[in-house]
Amino acid sequence: MRVGVLTGGGDCPGLNAAIRAIVRKGVQECGFEFVGLRDGWRGALEGAVVPLDIPAVRGILPRGGTILGSSRTNPLKSEDGVARVRETLAAYEMDALIAIGGEDTLGVAAVLAGEGIGVVGVPKTIDNDVTGTDYTFGFDTAVNIATEAIDRLHTTAESHSRTLVVEVMGRHAGWIALHSGIAGGANVILIPEQPFDVDQVCAWVEDRFKIRYAPIVVVAEGAVPKAGQMVVKDSSLDEFGHVRLSGIGEWLAREIADRTGKEARTTVLGHIQRGGTPSAFDRWLATRFGLRAIDAVYERDFGTMVALRGADIVRVPLSEVTVGTKGVDPALYAEFGVFFG
Amino acid sequence: MRVGVLTGGGDCPGLNAAIRAIVRKGVQECGFEFVGLRDGWRGALEGAVVPLDIPAVRGILPRGGTILGSSRTNPLKSEDGVARVRETLAAYEMDALIAIGGEDTLGVAAVLAGEGIGVVGVPKTIDNDVTGTDYTFGFDTAVNIATEAIDRLHTTAESHSRTLVVEVMGRHAGWIALHSGIAGGANVILIPEQPFDVDQVCAWVEDRFKIRYAPIVVVAEGAVPKAGQMVVKDSSLDEFGHVRLSGIGEWLAREIADRTGKEARTTVLGHIQRGGTPSAFDRWLATRFGLRAIDAVYERDFGTMVALRGADIVRVPLSEVTVGTKGVDPALYAEFGVFFG
Amino acid sequence: MRVGVLTGGGDCPGLNAAIRAIVRKGVQECGFEFVGLRDGWRGALEGAVVPLDIPAVRGILPRGGTILGSSRTNPLKSEDGVARVRETLAAYEMDALIAIGGEDTLGVAAVLAGEGIGVVGVPKTIDNDVTGTDYTFGFDTAVNIATEAIDRLHTTAESHSRTLVVEVMGRHAGWIALHSGIAGGANVILIPEQPFDVDQVCAWVEDRFKIRYAPIVVVAEGAVPKAGQMVVKDSSLDEFGHVRLSGIGEWLAREIADRTGKEARTTVLGHIQRGGTPSAFDRWLATRFGLRAIDAVYERDFGTMVALRGADIVRVPLSEVTVGTKGVDPALYAEFGVFFG
Amino acid sequence: MRVGVLTGGGDCPGLNAAIRAIVRKGVQECGFEFVGLRDGWRGALEGAVVPLDIPAVRGILPRGGTILGSSRTNPLKSEDGVARVRETLAAYEMDALIAIGGEDTLGVAAVLAGEGIGVVGVPKTIDNDVTGTDYTFGFDTAVNIATEAIDRLHTTAESHSRTLVVEVMGRHAGWIALHSGIAGGANVILIPEQPFDVDQVCAWVEDRFKIRYAPIVVVAEGAVPKAGQMVVKDSSLDEFGHVRLSGIGEWLAREIADRTGKEARTTVLGHIQRGGTPSAFDRWLATRFGLRAIDAVYERDFGTMVALRGADIVRVPLSEVTVGTKGVDPALYAEFGVFFG
Repeated sequence: MRVGVLTGGGDCPGLNAAIRAIVRKGVQECGFEFVGLRDGWRGALEGAVVPLDIPAVRGILPRGGTILGSSRTNPLKSEDGVARVRETLAAYEMDALIAIGGEDTLGVAAVLAGEGIGVVGVPKTIDNDVTGTDYTFGFDTAVNIATEAIDRLHTTAESHSRTLVVEVMGRHAGWIALHSGIAGGANVILIPEQPFDVDQVCAWVEDRFKIRYAPIVVVAEGAVPKAGQMVVKDSSLDEFGHVRLSGIGEWLAREIADRTGKEARTTVLGHIQRGGTPSAFDRWLATRFGLRAIDAVYERDFGTMVALRGADIVRVPLSEVTVGTKGVDPALYAEFGVFFG
Repeated sequence: MRVGVLTGGGDCPGLNAAIRAIVRKGVQECGFEFVGLRDGWRGALEGAVVPLDIPAVRGILPRGGTILGSSRTNPLKSEDGVARVRETLAAYEMDALIAIGGEDTLGVAAVLAGEGIGVVGVPKTIDNDVTGTDYTFGFDTAVNIATEAIDRLHTTAESHSRTLVVEVMGRHAGWIALHSGIAGGANVILIPEQPFDVDQVCAWVEDRFKIRYAPIVVVAEGAVPKAGQMVVKDSSLDEFGHVRLSGIGEWLAREIADRTGKEARTTVLGHIQRGGTPSAFDRWLATRFGLRAIDAVYERDFGTMVALRGADIVRVPLSEVTVGTKGVDPALYAEFGVFFG
Repeated sequence: MRVGVLTGGGDCPGLNAAIRAIVRKGVQECGFEFVGLRDGWRGALEGAVVPLDIPAVRGILPRGGTILGSSRTNPLKSEDGVARVRETLAAYEMDALIAIGGEDTLGVAAVLAGEGIGVVGVPKTIDNDVTGTDYTFGFDTAVNIATEAIDRLHTTAESHSRTLVVEVMGRHAGWIALHSGIAGGANVILIPEQPFDVDQVCAWVEDRFKIRYAPIVVVAEGAVPKAGQMVVKDSSLDEFGHVRLSGIGEWLAREIADRTGKEARTTVLGHIQRGGTPSAFDRWLATRFGLRAIDAVYERDFGTMVALRGADIVRVPLSEVTVGTKGVDPALYAEFGVFFG
Repeated sequence: MRVGVLTGGGDCPGLNAAIRAIVRKGVQECGFEFVGLRDGWRGALEGAVVPLDIPAVRGILPRGGTILGSSRTNPLKSEDGVARVRETLAAYEMDALIAIGGEDTLGVAAVLAGEGIGVVGVPKTIDNDVTGTDYTFGFDTAVNIATEAIDRLHTTAESHSRTLVVEVMGRHAGWIALHSGIAGGANVILIPEQPFDVDQVCAWVEDRFKIRYAPIVVVAEGAVPKAGQMVVKDSSLDEFGHVRLSGIGEWLAREIADRTGKEARTTVLGHIQRGGTPSAFDRWLATRFGLRAIDAVYERDFGTMVALRGADIVRVPLSEVTVGTKGVDPALYAEFGVFFG
């Protein structure tokens, strides 16, 4: 049996650990051969492949990124995309495909499975927003990096009596903001799922200054203020009339500074959240996902995705992932209100 | 309502995070007062208390250890232990007790609950061997530290073509060994739940050398060889005739060196696994446990323990913890056989 | 003898280690008493003081920031500044002052010493741009943080075949950029001391892509392109006609993307470079500086500054610091040209 | 010109960074070719070589260990050693040799240089005990690892009111113990250069307990008590009558526990101090050493060694290294007495 493997979407710590587990178990226990598809679905569309055997996966467990490359290419966006994927599979005699990715990559996998292609999915995303699994790998690493950054920022905030706004990843889901904010002892945490009230944020900031500590505000990049609170000034428009703001963090710091009269600064963590060596948990989870994906292929249980439930790895239909992003439940968010201010 | 809080057993990263969450929510949302019991059950026995209010818990979230101190004192071991605990509670007008600890501490809590004392338990242990909860806090930090150490040892093993044996914590359960061994890319992992075959270990070591890589062997401190394999030489007995071995790691390294004829060294990670700042996951879990323990006290749902199930915090009877240690399932261990050798 | 201590300018890992060493040695060996001046020269101007004794410095060695607070207040900017500093010293019966800071803080100290005030200086700055000393504390920590970030960015750059521009601190001196860029294996390093040629930068970027690796460009915040290369578009002006650019990193990434036609992203490390626990070297250096500053006070050798020369701590005139910023020598920078592209 | 490169002695973070710099500059700027000698002087003796070109050094900068392998083989110990080294050089047409190592490796290099072989030395050792250079690479990483471990041990020591003895590397020189002990806030630091008084150690331990903090004792593996203080009990002898002690740390912890009546534990850091990714400083220093070693080869300035003086890299005669180990000066050690107890 020949199995193709691809990694799609944003890169994420743990991808290499998953690839290694897939190849080690597939070759050693099942006698499979593997084909690496280059740059996610692009490789499947264009027939761009790389060799993938045991020597190729030696030493990659602790390395971030993906040896297969990644892209956001979506084969469903071109009319003959599915046909071209089929051609690539035929050309390289692949009997099955393991697709490692987030909502988009797995959504494509679900469609292909519906078309009769033998696909097994492995969920990954630093944002932790894939439905059907308790956690995805990459998330724990991102949260650890953001928490360590917040730890560092506390000392500089205290030393200068200033508000520090930390913008973390999370366009649609606030998981990184919530976990790192709680772990880092933030005084305000703002997530995309709940439009925030700038007045309330400033009140919390003032509360913090009153007890002579400096506030840390953690904001997910996708968080937005309540309707009407973000006034766009003329000067914030670019040559096409689009709003030009570096991001919500910078906007918020300016508002806080204007309203409280005290200095406020922004730090945008950016890509360091998704790079570098994976945490132990992410290596463990990615390895277990990889091993179990091979079980699914071996049993030809296609159209499924491996998932974490408690301490167990289970299999769920790939279609589960397509119901939409898994966001932070308002009830969960509300539990932490005691730490705000 | 006045609530006593104690931390028992070995110290563990996340204890302070739990204490902070308990006090923050208890004071701010429920109007509780708190009494800190010094050094676990010793404080309850001897009436040793410390003030515990919001200023006392400021800044402790990222700190390892416990501001309340800890000990292995067991009040059930003295005849009047339960009565003395009752006296302390009465003397300081405590209406309830939150006991944070592992199997021993929580076992005592279960007995006291049976005697009508209002106790709520919070599980912690770096060993992850408490039944009734998917994970305990402290474990993730320990695994990260061990994994980072294994990462470091790989390079020195390779450079000198030697076997490195890493002894990690885990007297009764192999969770730290298994997780850090898998995350660290160990070539052999030995756990207390499965007596190991020294011949097999040496065969794996030889396999590794054959492909010109240096083997890393991760061994839990409580792991033992199969019956008859550990020959005790006269010189290994101390003045009382007891076996004197620094530990299983050292013994195993000597056996491997003797049998394979190649250099082998041991590193015993020891107490660095339980100290220092908690990982983001442990801060998150400890905080959530603390918040939910307050809910249980508020609802006077005594005799219960908070526990993790998937991504949720639930409440289980304290008696669950007394069924014994949660070990590594042989089936789970077997999944990773593909990485051995 | 009563000695005032202040920390001025941007906060910096190691300040607390220096304060601790000063107080420990001053009290234990010399019988000094200490007064903490709040927020740098502001405390000296306004008579804002805090107690500073051995209990106050317990546990602060590993903590970033400064327990004394900091500010950029300059007493020389108000006409009666020197007189007011004198008044504060008299009011609290301080016989001497230890000023810990960078070029600005030490410049003030040099002037005050000229006015007969008993001042000893301790150099600190993450930028490493103080003349008269081989290194300042804070720098090594900042370089380690930046290097770790660059390590992380390599993996995400590779996975997506994109250029990553990392903007690090350094308005006037390129030390952080040079050290972290070399340690992190950057492909281009740009420093304030040498205006860069955007065409050359793009050529190096292209060279890197040719061998199928993704380029990392490290740029100091104060680096600038050669005259004429930074064209400011109308839309980059704010309502007052000032150039509005988030920073050189963002500008450069846009230029690289425009000119090479390949994706380029920016990460601005910002304040995480100056926060958090100091590296071992910075704790060592700050401790030694603190101990030797006490020697200078004890010997009433005022108007001096402690400094690192090789592995030794020496004393130099405070006036040395006023000759200007210590920048990266072009010859040193040129040594690393072999790694560019 | 063809140049051989070898790494001898214990492995050390930064070796790969030095190798990379040598090859990059040698090939790109001087047109040199390189031959890698396998496992230090063993490769030179036995003609064991590996290819060494630019692709071979890609990506190795952040990796610990050495891609060339290492050993403690000493060609001067076999009668025809020098002749065999000459033969290997001739067989592979090497015009010069760059030897990277500590006192032993460089001592051999000095002898070979005396025999007319074109050798340039690069000093490395985690122990920092090479004469002629302010610092060697590897040392800073080891100190950072030990300091981080001490930071972790503080919390577990406090939580249980116990003494923790940390044994760090350093058979002949106490640099790692002194730097990590000072950086980690140890209460006692013991180094090989100064036999210690167990009574004094116990007095310091008691002092620490009096103020209700738990003592941390850092001891170099080569430290010894004053004459007569180490009583060897019968039971500590092995079958050959040799003293059987795991190490000085374990012995000392037992003595402290016996004499103070309070619990004491040992942690032996061992090989994790020399493995893993190098610190930023070590990557910088190793890179600079590598670049300058090429200059020396290019200028045919053989019999020399590169060395750090302040912030500069200089060249010194290889013979300097043979005057013996660079230990901690008693005056320097005495400076830190204020922190003991």
